[in-house]
Amino acid sequence: MGKKRVMVPADEVDLSTVKYGEEPLHAPHLTGFVFRLFVRIVEAPLIGPWIISRMKKQNKVDELLRNTVIPEEPMFKPEYPPQEMERGVVDIDEDGRPEDRVESALTCLPHYDPAAFLGNSSTSFRYWKIRDYAYAYRSRNVTPSMVAENIISVIEEISGEKPRTPLLISFDAEGVRKQAAASTQRFESGNPLSILDGIFMAIKDDIDCYPHPSKGGTTWLHEVRLVNEDAVSVARLRRCGVIFVGKANMHEMGMGTTGNNPNYGTTRNPHAPERYTGGSSSGPAAIVASGLCSAALGTDGGGSVRIPSSLCGVVGLKTTYGRTDMNGSICDSGTVEIIGPIASTVEDVMLVYAAMLGSSPANKISLKPSPPCLPNLSSYDDSNVLGSLRLGKYTPWFNDVHSTEVSDKCEDALNQLSKAYGCEMIEITIPELHEMRTAHVVSIGSECLCGLNPHCEDGKAKKLTYDTRTNLALFRSFNAADYFAAQCLRRRLMYYHMEIFKKVDVIVTPTTGMTAPRIPPGALKSGETDLEVTGYLMRFVVAANLLGFPAISVPVGYDKEGLPIGLQLIGRPWGEATILRLASAAENLCGESRRRPMSYYDVLKAK
Amino acid sequence: MGKKRVMVPADEVDLSTVKYGEEPLHAPHLTGFVFRLFVRIVEAPLIGPWIISRMKKQNKVDELLRNTVIPEEPMFKPEYPPQEMERGVVDIDEDGRPEDRVESALTCLPHYDPAAFLGNSSTSFRYWKIRDYAYAYRSRNVTPSMVAENIISVIEEISGEKPRTPLLISFDAEGVRKQAAASTQRFESGNPLSILDGIFMAIKDDIDCYPHPSKGGTTWLHEVRLVNEDAVSVARLRRCGVIFVGKANMHEMGMGTTGNNPNYGTTRNPHAPERYTGGSSSGPAAIVASGLCSAALGTDGGGSVRIPSSLCGVVGLKTTYGRTDMNGSICDSGTVEIIGPIASTVEDVMLVYAAMLGSSPANKISLKPSPPCLPNLSSYDDSNVLGSLRLGKYTPWFNDVHSTEVSDKCEDALNQLSKAYGCEMIEITIPELHEMRTAHVVSIGSECLCGLNPHCEDGKAKKLTYDTRTNLALFRSFNAADYFAAQCLRRRLMYYHMEIFKKVDVIVTPTTGMTAPRIPPGALKSGETDLEVTGYLMRFVVAANLLGFPAISVPVGYDKEGLPIGLQLIGRPWGEATILRLASAAENLCGESRRRPMSYYDVLKAK
Repeated sequence: MGKKRVMVPADEVDLSTVKYGEEPLHAPHLTGFVFRLFVRIVEAPLIGPWIISRMKKQNKVDELLRNTVIPEEPMFKPEYPPQEMERGVVDIDEDGRPEDRVESALTCLPHYDPAAFLGNSSTSFRYWKIRDYAYAYRSRNVTPSMVAENIISVIEEISGEKPRTPLLISFDAEGVRKQAAASTQRFESGNPLSILDGIFMAIKDDIDCYPHPSKGGTTWLHEVRLVNEDAVSVARLRRCGVIFVGKANMHEMGMGTTGNNPNYGTTRNPHAPERYTGGSSSGPAAIVASGLCSAALGTDGGGSVRIPSSLCGVVGLKTTYGRTDMNGSICDSGTVEIIGPIASTVEDVMLVYAAMLGSSPANKISLKPSPPCLPNLSSYDDSNVLGSLRLGKYTPWFNDVHSTEVSDKCEDALNQLSKAYGCEMIEITIPELHEMRTAHVVSIGSECLCGLNPHCEDGKAKKLTYDTRTNLALFRSFNAADYFAAQCLRRRLMYYHMEIFKKVDVIVTPTTGMTAPRIPPGALKSGETDLEVTGYLMRFVVAANLLGFPAISVPVGYDKEGLPIGLQLIGRPWGEATILRLASAAENLCGESRRRPMSYYDVLKAK
Repeated sequence: MGKKRVMVPADEVDLSTVKYGEEPLHAPHLTGFVFRLFVRIVEAPLIGPWIISRMKKQNKVDELLRNTVIPEEPMFKPEYPPQEMERGVVDIDEDGRPEDRVESALTCLPHYDPAAFLGNSSTSFRYWKIRDYAYAYRSRNVTPSMVAENIISVIEEISGEKPRTPLLISFDAEGVRKQAAASTQRFESGNPLSILDGIFMAIKDDIDCYPHPSKGGTTWLHEVRLVNEDAVSVARLRRCGVIFVGKANMHEMGMGTTGNNPNYGTTRNPHAPERYTGGSSSGPAAIVASGLCSAALGTDGGGSVRIPSSLCGVVGLKTTYGRTDMNGSICDSGTVEIIGPIASTVEDVMLVYAAMLGSSPANKISLKPSPPCLPNLSSYDDSNVLGSLRLGKYTPWFNDVHSTEVSDKCEDALNQLSKAYGCEMIEITIPELHEMRTAHVVSIGSECLCGLNPHCEDGKAKKLTYDTRTNLALFRSFNAADYFAAQCLRRRLMYYHMEIFKKVDVIVTPTTGMTAPRIPPGALKSGETDLEVTGYLMRFVVAANLLGFPAISVPVGYDKEGLPIGLQLIGRPWGEATILRLASAAENLCGESRRRPMSYYDVLKAK
């Protein structure tokens, strides 16, 4: 029996009395045999629930959800008041043809200079951008089929490696060749479908890309969930001529932030093969960072696009909740998850985003999204708009990282933005971060468990990885009233954030509290549980999921071991344009130092 | 480990293959010592959860929530597409003054004939209506203070009875006298506030009515939840001059359908004192049925307004979810509950409804309610509009009642409506009624538990009645994924109902599957659990709660023991006007046979 806590209503909380104090997560770090034993104990009757209950007690979960009077009504999905349109943007017609939307997006980009591309080898490292491929295809220097052969040879080369480090879980060389041949044919006849024609992309294994199976990183999901067509977002890209190389690796069921996957092998970080990519969209981020694909689609329910983008040194966009259509993804009915693009540059993210966006019909009714738009970066007004942006920073949170290199580099980037454009930095306070984390884990956990339950009851539980099974044991311990309480917390946290967004346009944080963690050798076979690492990786990402805000991770430098560091920009609801604009500016200011990844990246270039 | 069931999407279900088969609830009927023992066992560790789990298995709860693949997205609150306005209605300005709204409502009523009122004693029984009081006050025959003294003497007389059968849990004679004196004064100075000035009402004990405490039928809730002002709906009525007699008795925390309350005594049915009133708004329905108050406010999260209205022979309106403002009620943040009026006639329900309606500001944004309106019953067009209504009836469900007297009387009423106005009867099929019941109990249970949890953890659990404790043990067994699954079922059932509402305007059922059940003598002291009775009482009510539809119970006759029978009319979202119109017509056709309640009813009349 605990002592009851009574929260005052959110609008009566005195922010000047709020003290920052992120509470560390308490749980053992386990790998190998001990981890497997632990999972069996946690799944056992009586003793299992008892252990889970002890762990929750240490982390004050029940205290918050069951002993606290929360005065707010529940908010089951992100709900927003109508938002103002920002200056200097180009509308993207949500109901229009994806090809036309990509065309609109192109008008937002600065002038394309082939010289910068062709002269690339002599200067610092630079990824091939979508417009580089487009230029090459249109000047008949390269064909999609040529690129396809390069990619196929690399993928096939990797597949022989030991231990397995697959970028893709599902790959079909003939399928890639066919798509590439069709694209090549379109270029030959002078009828490419869009600027994305012949652009190679990978799709995370939890988003349908016909005829590939969707396994969600498991060994069995495709047996109970057949894929008969593309997910809506994939279909939109396919219309634009995108070539899909296959299904990218991921943390099983998206239930982890490292990318560890004992079923298929753990994708390695292209900047340091002995380190994790981050997850759960491990394959998508790595295949982009390696230079093999221009872009990828990932899903982000708890940082799963942004974390690996940050750790791999690429750009990842978490769209506003409801901005993208979840039909055809494994988790198509949650309240925290979206599909978002990963690419090597902000401009490529913009092009892919323009093609794949669009709410589902149901969300258009229930969420009333503001119309999508993109920042007009080619306009003379761009730096004026940039200069008007107010950036909110909660300094004690910002600095609560594993190594100060991370916060220092992010701070540097912000200083450069202030210096170059006059962006104003505003100190903010965000209360109840522990509450936010708890509300998020209860929401995503319960929603995920709901989808998995019928299969688990049907005997598939033992076929999941130990990591997933540990998570499921925790998720099963949440009762329905906990879920409801978490939704009441969601309304509180929405209130705080909407108040903050009256004073600032963007909230800035590091994307992750640490750079890519090392893979413990014992973790490859059976996975691991390491909540300290999870805590650092997820420290800054959950607001965008629980509250549905758009957020982007953009690379701003490296630590002294050469590992990428990402800056996160969190925008107002439906405010993708603002964070894209700011990310592009940050990229321009910090991008000169972009480093060459350590493997595969230049195979294409070398040919 | 169960066998997995995969549901086909709701829009692919072939309704022609649906077979009606309400599954009976499996659970023992317990009272007295055995019941108390049972509760202690159910609350014990290990054995308790095991028993609950067995009971859930028998009732196929986990099978449905955990072993079933439900293809729909969750729907956490009722969500509706925009609705068409109906013909022949008068708008009620949601943002206007309650007094003006009552004035608008008055214009909807047929001409008032004092002769019918004065000549009443010679014809069949007839309650005093609000307009009767208003006429009497304005003709200076009666003053509110005179009526107050009558009510006070009856309430004080009852309070000496053994066993206790209180209509009110909180009563303050001096407070009533003061309100009445102020109203009398207004009439003397010729300035009544509205037609509701001097009208006596009772407020269910879970809605704040300052300065009374809100105990929710418990012995302790008022100690942890202070009342500092009226609930929004009560404040609106007070502005109109309504006199509040006190807080009406109820089933503890609204968690039951009989009205049994061992804390304060069980309210008796005015038509048969050895029988239940139904619940949970037992006091509100009984005090109206007894003739002591013109109207009362109740809450309805699982039939709690309609069930006791039906069993006590009065009219009870369950408003559309979000139509009324829940601020100031104990359960102010659920997804199934509303505040609704109870009165002896449809016209009085209309007057009170007009005064108290109005969504909370948050609901106006998130639910986008259609503007409220009332049927213009005084218009020549009324019977034309009535004749255009199509009534949907699912016959095997309609007839699945404890005694055919119930369905026969309801059927008679429908036949009269068809004959008198030409309403068309249309046979419909509603699939997945078991799923609907399960989704409802998981939703309401979890939401209720969330509000009670902090107090229970704080030591109040043992101060609840055995009945409530049994329910809480069940509610605690629902996990968060169950809650989520229930919300997916909510979307399915919404789909089916919205399809039905394309073909019919109103769904008709008996309100309850049985007339007022007898109170087992052993149940007064410690309560009882009788899921068979619960099943009959709740059989037809949950659609309006889970899906938020408006619904009304209107008396249409009596069984051979003289117990009232109610007909339920379920309307489209925001369609209160249609069901009020139809209820008024049914009342006119069947009302002649209205019977005099057995006690208190005529104290006022006799003076």
